[in-house]
Amino acid sequence: MTNVELINIGDELLIGQIVNTNATWIGQQLSLSGYWLKQITTIGDNEQEIVDALNAAMSRAQIILITGGLGPTKDDLTKDVLCKYFNTQLVFNEQAYSDIENIFHARGKAVTETNKRQAELPAACIPIYNKKGTAPGMWFNHGEQVFVSMPGVPFEMQAMMQNDVLPKLRQLYESMPLVHKTILTQGIGESDLSDRIAAWENDLPAHLKLAYLPAAGMVRLRLTGKGVEHMEQDMNLRIDKLKELIAPYIFGYDDDTIQSVVGKLLTEKQKTLSVAESCTGGFLAHLITSIPGSSTYFMGGTVSYSNAAKMSQLHVSEQSLKEYGAVSEAVAIEMAIGARKTYNTDFALSTTGIAGPGGGSLEKPIGTVWIGVATHDACFAKKFMLGTNRLRIIQVAADTALNMLRKKINEHN
Amino acid sequence: MTNVELINIGDELLIGQIVNTNATWIGQQLSLSGYWLKQITTIGDNEQEIVDALNAAMSRAQIILITGGLGPTKDDLTKDVLCKYFNTQLVFNEQAYSDIENIFHARGKAVTETNKRQAELPAACIPIYNKKGTAPGMWFNHGEQVFVSMPGVPFEMQAMMQNDVLPKLRQLYESMPLVHKTILTQGIGESDLSDRIAAWENDLPAHLKLAYLPAAGMVRLRLTGKGVEHMEQDMNLRIDKLKELIAPYIFGYDDDTIQSVVGKLLTEKQKTLSVAESCTGGFLAHLITSIPGSSTYFMGGTVSYSNAAKMSQLHVSEQSLKEYGAVSEAVAIEMAIGARKTYNTDFALSTTGIAGPGGGSLEKPIGTVWIGVATHDACFAKKFMLGTNRLRIIQVAADTALNMLRKKINEHN
Repeated sequence: MTNVELINIGDELLIGQIVNTNATWIGQQLSLSGYWLKQITTIGDNEQEIVDALNAAMSRAQIILITGGLGPTKDDLTKDVLCKYFNTQLVFNEQAYSDIENIFHARGKAVTETNKRQAELPAACIPIYNKKGTAPGMWFNHGEQVFVSMPGVPFEMQAMMQNDVLPKLRQLYESMPLVHKTILTQGIGESDLSDRIAAWENDLPAHLKLAYLPAAGMVRLRLTGKGVEHMEQDMNLRIDKLKELIAPYIFGYDDDTIQSVVGKLLTEKQKTLSVAESCTGGFLAHLITSIPGSSTYFMGGTVSYSNAAKMSQLHVSEQSLKEYGAVSEAVAIEMAIGARKTYNTDFALSTTGIAGPGGGSLEKPIGTVWIGVATHDACFAKKFMLGTNRLRIIQVAADTALNMLRKKINEHN
Repeated sequence: MTNVELINIGDELLIGQIVNTNATWIGQQLSLSGYWLKQITTIGDNEQEIVDALNAAMSRAQIILITGGLGPTKDDLTKDVLCKYFNTQLVFNEQAYSDIENIFHARGKAVTETNKRQAELPAACIPIYNKKGTAPGMWFNHGEQVFVSMPGVPFEMQAMMQNDVLPKLRQLYESMPLVHKTILTQGIGESDLSDRIAAWENDLPAHLKLAYLPAAGMVRLRLTGKGVEHMEQDMNLRIDKLKELIAPYIFGYDDDTIQSVVGKLLTEKQKTLSVAESCTGGFLAHLITSIPGSSTYFMGGTVSYSNAAKMSQLHVSEQSLKEYGAVSEAVAIEMAIGARKTYNTDFALSTTGIAGPGGGSLEKPIGTVWIGVATHDACFAKKFMLGTNRLRIIQVAADTALNMLRKKINEHN
């Protein structure tokens, strides 16, 4: 089996100044290619720590991927450390320089002295040319092992991985059978799920592993098969049995999201959607429009953060606002009806709630959210209590609204 | 100096199924408390790998923090492995059980058998009780060292760190002087910045380190001082000099975001804002409303994904849409003016562009975005080319719109 390790270099990762999305993306890609990422090591821009991490990874893995520390500035050490580590020296590379020139020309600028030094590469490496930025990657063969150094800027690293690194790894290193199947559930907790499927889970053979992945308002169940040929058919049969056990809670599979599932449903049924948002403040529309092609079914939305906007844009009645308050069943329903009329759509969703940290009361504490759904023949709203964290309330309210719509559309079948 | 290491346990992190935001958050908190996080190690739910990672971390650090693998289900191994590692055994803990009961009662449910086992804890550990979930944390003293195991669910881990772990660490382990100062810039590249401040940077003493952190459409400059007493005054003087060198590009400091900076400006000046979004699809409104208290200055927004909505909600003229197309200077300007009138605000922002992957043409390729700003006496729009990645286009367009507003407000001074 080919083991892969990833080393992420950068003080900014250790002090939490940026989120390590590179590790997530690389893990996904390796997994899709049938390689097992065994360990991720994150260290600072420090020569000794980089050398220690290289040595440790070399003792465990055949493929060592490295990101970060290739910028043109003084804090970037990776190239010099690798140069020493492989006992080689920097030489000027014409092709790398021409790539850098092209990047600068496209921005209407001349190459700076600092950036010119990025065209110097260790003699012992095979350069990986960078079309998206100024730092070339480096491929070092070392006996049966390989060390690949890439920039930390996500879209530069991603282009290198997809165009150069992964194709070459697949030629040189055997990948193993690795199959993931994921079921996405809403409305049931991790332990209830576990109790419900205990017999099914106990029946799994050693090469199949089930993981429970709870996230805001949902639980993902992931079945992973590793190292056995032709296991997919058996896995599919097992997944079919699992689906029967928890059918009412399933909203999607694998890389689905609630917004992609709703998007597919609306596209299939040629229906349109609009939204009226108060407490989710645009996040619900953002989730919907993050899906490519959403403009065919999403007509628009109103973020009515003020009562005035609720009245003028969504035709919510002043009386309901006065009598029940903005966070109420009546206003959620009027908002959804208003959006549906305003944007002339088949369905509309609405959210109104108290995301905090201010604005809570004894009667309506922070986390109180009303979500409304309007269709051609009905409109209703439900109340949810979503905790006290502002961003989590926004996230769970938007996900829940989309799931309510999904259920409603499926009822119409 | 007290070294800290973090071990994150979970296959889902290695196959990229979730983003490791726990590492980011813990890094931030340690840094604020004056501890240096030396290494982050991410491994799978595998006994041998967990033991190897514990041994390696023990050889380098005094404080070893561990997250993940404490769930009630079969894939969670951390508690059993730690129990073996510290040569102890599980005993039933009344207080932990009562916490679990409370969690279930609040949901109107009875404790399941699976969850009951979560109340069994290693005899050798000091329990860290969990008010937010069912998995208690564990504190193991080991000579001069400490191992702390916490759940992987972010808000449970965060509550434990803040209420129990960090206060106790501060009592027991010396923290070092550690100061970060960050300047946020827009509109200048990493190498141009570096050239512009070369003399200043060369003058830095050994205990001060400058890092360049490029992100979508911006560069953060972070000066870190480590290990020297009373360095803050000197750092402030240096930061003042640095500010003079790059003044036109600075939009904020430290934990500022462009949305928090704009929010502060609007609050100070008691001005209001609305938005009209096409290509950003609600994300601009989401950024604005992610700031607590934004309801005092943000009145609302319209996501006009269809031409019909642009006309009916924002009073964009049919003629402009026909003559120039939806992605044009004229439409961006009319959208901003329309939003400003509709929501009756001092300022309005608009975005219209092609976020892809479809919809591009030779004349208006994917990534073409017009951003409009309307004030009481002027309205203008600017064109940007923002690459080809849908989510990046949305992100950079929203950030850029807010930065244009920031500049415009400051002009009004």
